[in-house]
Amino acid sequence: MTRGFGSDNHAGVLPEALAAIASVNEGHAPSYGHDELTERVAARLCDELGGGQAFFVFNGSGANVLSMRALLKAWEGVVCAETAHLNVDEGGAPEAWGIKLLTVPARDGKLTPELVSSRIVRIGDEHAVQPRVVTISQSTELGTLYTLEEVRALADHAHEHGLLLHVDGARITNAAAALGVSLRGATTDLGVDVLSFGGTKAGLLAGEAVVVLSEEAAAALPYLRKQTLQLASKMRFISAQFDALLDDELWRRAAGHANAMAGRLADAVRDVPGVELTQEPQANAVFAILPPGVADTLRERWFFYDWDELRGEVRWMCSWDTTEADVDAFAADLADAVAAG
Amino acid sequence: MTRGFGSDNHAGVLPEALAAIASVNEGHAPSYGHDELTERVAARLCDELGGGQAFFVFNGSGANVLSMRALLKAWEGVVCAETAHLNVDEGGAPEAWGIKLLTVPARDGKLTPELVSSRIVRIGDEHAVQPRVVTISQSTELGTLYTLEEVRALADHAHEHGLLLHVDGARITNAAAALGVSLRGATTDLGVDVLSFGGTKAGLLAGEAVVVLSEEAAAALPYLRKQTLQLASKMRFISAQFDALLDDELWRRAAGHANAMAGRLADAVRDVPGVELTQEPQANAVFAILPPGVADTLRERWFFYDWDELRGEVRWMCSWDTTEADVDAFAADLADAVAAG
Amino acid sequence: MTRGFGSDNHAGVLPEALAAIASVNEGHAPSYGHDELTERVAARLCDELGGGQAFFVFNGSGANVLSMRALLKAWEGVVCAETAHLNVDEGGAPEAWGIKLLTVPARDGKLTPELVSSRIVRIGDEHAVQPRVVTISQSTELGTLYTLEEVRALADHAHEHGLLLHVDGARITNAAAALGVSLRGATTDLGVDVLSFGGTKAGLLAGEAVVVLSEEAAAALPYLRKQTLQLASKMRFISAQFDALLDDELWRRAAGHANAMAGRLADAVRDVPGVELTQEPQANAVFAILPPGVADTLRERWFFYDWDELRGEVRWMCSWDTTEADVDAFAADLADAVAAG
Amino acid sequence: MTRGFGSDNHAGVLPEALAAIASVNEGHAPSYGHDELTERVAARLCDELGGGQAFFVFNGSGANVLSMRALLKAWEGVVCAETAHLNVDEGGAPEAWGIKLLTVPARDGKLTPELVSSRIVRIGDEHAVQPRVVTISQSTELGTLYTLEEVRALADHAHEHGLLLHVDGARITNAAAALGVSLRGATTDLGVDVLSFGGTKAGLLAGEAVVVLSEEAAAALPYLRKQTLQLASKMRFISAQFDALLDDELWRRAAGHANAMAGRLADAVRDVPGVELTQEPQANAVFAILPPGVADTLRERWFFYDWDELRGEVRWMCSWDTTEADVDAFAADLADAVAAG
Repeated sequence: MTRGFGSDNHAGVLPEALAAIASVNEGHAPSYGHDELTERVAARLCDELGGGQAFFVFNGSGANVLSMRALLKAWEGVVCAETAHLNVDEGGAPEAWGIKLLTVPARDGKLTPELVSSRIVRIGDEHAVQPRVVTISQSTELGTLYTLEEVRALADHAHEHGLLLHVDGARITNAAAALGVSLRGATTDLGVDVLSFGGTKAGLLAGEAVVVLSEEAAAALPYLRKQTLQLASKMRFISAQFDALLDDELWRRAAGHANAMAGRLADAVRDVPGVELTQEPQANAVFAILPPGVADTLRERWFFYDWDELRGEVRWMCSWDTTEADVDAFAADLADAVAAG
Repeated sequence: MTRGFGSDNHAGVLPEALAAIASVNEGHAPSYGHDELTERVAARLCDELGGGQAFFVFNGSGANVLSMRALLKAWEGVVCAETAHLNVDEGGAPEAWGIKLLTVPARDGKLTPELVSSRIVRIGDEHAVQPRVVTISQSTELGTLYTLEEVRALADHAHEHGLLLHVDGARITNAAAALGVSLRGATTDLGVDVLSFGGTKAGLLAGEAVVVLSEEAAAALPYLRKQTLQLASKMRFISAQFDALLDDELWRRAAGHANAMAGRLADAVRDVPGVELTQEPQANAVFAILPPGVADTLRERWFFYDWDELRGEVRWMCSWDTTEADVDAFAADLADAVAAG
Repeated sequence: MTRGFGSDNHAGVLPEALAAIASVNEGHAPSYGHDELTERVAARLCDELGGGQAFFVFNGSGANVLSMRALLKAWEGVVCAETAHLNVDEGGAPEAWGIKLLTVPARDGKLTPELVSSRIVRIGDEHAVQPRVVTISQSTELGTLYTLEEVRALADHAHEHGLLLHVDGARITNAAAALGVSLRGATTDLGVDVLSFGGTKAGLLAGEAVVVLSEEAAAALPYLRKQTLQLASKMRFISAQFDALLDDELWRRAAGHANAMAGRLADAVRDVPGVELTQEPQANAVFAILPPGVADTLRERWFFYDWDELRGEVRWMCSWDTTEADVDAFAADLADAVAAG
Repeated sequence: MTRGFGSDNHAGVLPEALAAIASVNEGHAPSYGHDELTERVAARLCDELGGGQAFFVFNGSGANVLSMRALLKAWEGVVCAETAHLNVDEGGAPEAWGIKLLTVPARDGKLTPELVSSRIVRIGDEHAVQPRVVTISQSTELGTLYTLEEVRALADHAHEHGLLLHVDGARITNAAAALGVSLRGATTDLGVDVLSFGGTKAGLLAGEAVVVLSEEAAAALPYLRKQTLQLASKMRFISAQFDALLDDELWRRAAGHANAMAGRLADAVRDVPGVELTQEPQANAVFAILPPGVADTLRERWFFYDWDELRGEVRWMCSWDTTEADVDAFAADLADAVAAG
């Protein structure tokens, strides 16, 4: 198919991850995660994250829903941005599992302690769902980043009010790479309680992890993972991919490259007349408003999505396999299209 | 790890399936199954099955729950054998999705029209869950097979009573191979309405398919698959594996081999004194009662599970990678252990 | 307890409803609504509403959740105002039943076709919950009313887009009385598809009705009512109350009186210096902002709730048993408190 | 309608309960159970039961489901008899709330420690729902009683295995009356952890109570009751009925009378040729097999239900309002019908 900037999950599998799959494909192994490799890699991932217990799952929706199920009682809810993937892109899966989202409008897709406080109300009132978890996406669905201080402030604020902080880390590697910190530096060290660690968008075939610090939640997770339909039988093939991702910080190279390509793209187009960057790219996404007709012309050669059709905003995602040549050719095509417009 | 007869999901990935994954790992593809390869392979699978629409998912639990969700209204239930995987091995996932199982005790793990009829009662009574789907496992959890006539009789009986027939086909390839029929000959031609088509136990890394004949159910499935957390983003890698499985009936070779190994194993041990086969193996499983202490001795070299600890019954599963040497060595060890007992 | 303006469900039971209960308390009757009285009263209610089928339930939360369950598939959602009772006061019951609410900020608590349209997006996108029902409260939680034209416009708009219109009629009798129309004139004649008909706030001991026009939904309702825990065994006692409520339009007298008391209250306080009515009362509620400290003084003698503590807004509800003396004494106390403030 | 022996919920309301309703019908009271009367009666009920906290609800299905929701985590299940109301007569409500029932076939409708043990298996296995609650009906759906020793043995057995004992007490007053003990003597004193206390069949208009001894469960109940749609707004009218039921042990008089009528009926018919009592009546139900055609003849004058149509078994329920004249006339009609047969 046409190469493009459609999504970081349009890319394939990192060669190292594919090799890792092949390397464990001999002999027998206990299924459902009871194999030695899985135990070792789960422990390794927790080491990198500074503690907790890790549970591999199939996909990001699964990781997020599972995290919420592990943390919430039936009458408790989740404070999140209106733009959160959990709210707008999970096909109603949270609600299908009985979870109420307490949404707040959030500029740049980012929560603040003040926004969270607006949902810490009616405590003890049985007619109102009680706030219990705050969830943020890092990096966000709008390609923005929380600073380390912002995450820590949200964690502190949550804990002061008896709440927990979850990070939807579908792109946590992009965030850690952009912030120049370790995985634990981007999460646990800041007070994050539960993390959906994204592998697929980072370059795996499939595989995410739920990492929880609470022992009570950890005890629940094996049962909930099975019931939530996220327990792989041939688990070693997910574990092997994560092993590869951690080797020599492959995740940082891959995500850092994607981020760099987004930066290169932004720089290449920001001065094209009529092109307006709507968010300053901080991770691997570029959002821009184009002059009328330009998107259509570009799509003859490149694939990408509209973000806000009404105002002509488009989204360009870079991935581990985006090349400088891709970016430069695309930017050149954009300039041509604008000029011809 | 120790090789053994623990489960058909202790085996790895068919070389052809692994090669298929690698072969599609270049360039970009639309995610979530909207790529050309997925469309082509889904259509190909339906051709083999004689119609319907196919939807790839991650695992067997997902395929089964999704099938039920597509067929049931909130107050309708599922007639199944007490031994059905859906009842005893899904961690309560059906009930977590609001599904009541109307179980019947079933010898050999097999339903009959008479057994099903015992659950077609209190029709129209709002206090009772209304039967709507009959589900059978083919081959069964006890290693037995429904004959073609038996499946057809169950389908006819279901349809006469306004019910639908679902097949949990985690091992449908073992069944088709053992029965010597095509995939459609084992399912659609007999009146099966919905099929969970098992890929993982057949030798894939991960991947199952829900195949539905009803257009109404087919229209619901994209939404339900997403909401049930079974929609893979990099779908092409599941589709490629199924493509490989269908090439030159790889599924028949793989499953037929597993079946043959089970037969070889049964033949090799059936005359060992004190060893009793509790089910005549019809697919890729052998169930046997061993003299006291023998299982422990065998486990020093081989991995396998107890089935019914109280009566000393064990289960030996063969897979696509079980070798004649495995079987012969195991049988010899068994004979030795019995002799030494 | 202190009399007051806390809620229309702080009042007791209309004498006529209590007498109706006593009048059917002899002999035996089939339970669960299969008695002749229930059949007759349900039919009578439908006559008043111009069609459909009526199902009595215990409470308003039950009526609303049941209505939604009858109309929605698993992946479909409900467009409602952020202030809707369904969103903020049901303790997460809709979500507990898998229902996603697609909320919109709404001035005066009222939806408009434009607001609804903002949620009719991403149709056919499996990642997004699909809008299927629009629900409005009539009268609203803010004491406002939809005009007949507004309701009709919402119904027409919903139907044009393949959606259905539900009315949360916990106070539908107040609305019909205020609008000066029949029950059908306030609902079915305008295109309403499903109605939660409120009996409790109208003066019953307990009892609401779900009235559906769709035959498909009507067929589902007996099963769903039972499963949703809303099927009363001694149903005749609910039915008898509704019978009384319909006799000689008792509902209009009771609700009209409550409305009139709210109007009297508004008139009595609107010119008190420092008192600001935040909504012009259209049914039986009065919302006002009071000078600091005044609410506390008033509460020494009268019971009522804060609505928006931050801006000092309070809510005063009138009920069938509010007297002119109550209103006048309360208004006098208010004037005194302000003067003394 | 025809008087008869259809169900104890075909009877009306105890005069004392009706008077209690009328007696609290003046002035205003806080809604949703926050009134003084409710607090007082809930405390009174707990006193009678020897502790715990009591929460009034609408109906028995609600009480049972709410009890289960308060005690179970998502992956935990309920051991019950196959004949349990929870399993066969709740329209799938437990499963709709995600609850898996671990049923056992039980003679006389009664569980034993041995039967319960058959379900305490696969502990710690994430693929299997984990047993957590044992529920029994007292008196049972088959009109039988657990002795005090049997209940205590079940409680002790449950506690030894880390499980809790719930009693579905839709007819707990019949049981306590038949056993000649106090309410606490029939429940808390024996080790019962949670009780669904039945008011409706005991003679109330509507109203049950969930009584929990665990403080953790008690803290959850207000939220769960609201979310489970069982929170009455005009609660004082339920509380008043319970107050009446406790006055001078009205419950014992009413239930004892019903039991006595069942005994009288059994004695009157046990010697009629061809009539076989299938359970020795221990509470207020009589089960009998009648000669062919006799039931039809009787139904010309009396209402009652078939229990097992295949073997001609019928059920006769007595209630607080069954008279000696009813019983004697019915027995005479039965004798006539058999003689004429």
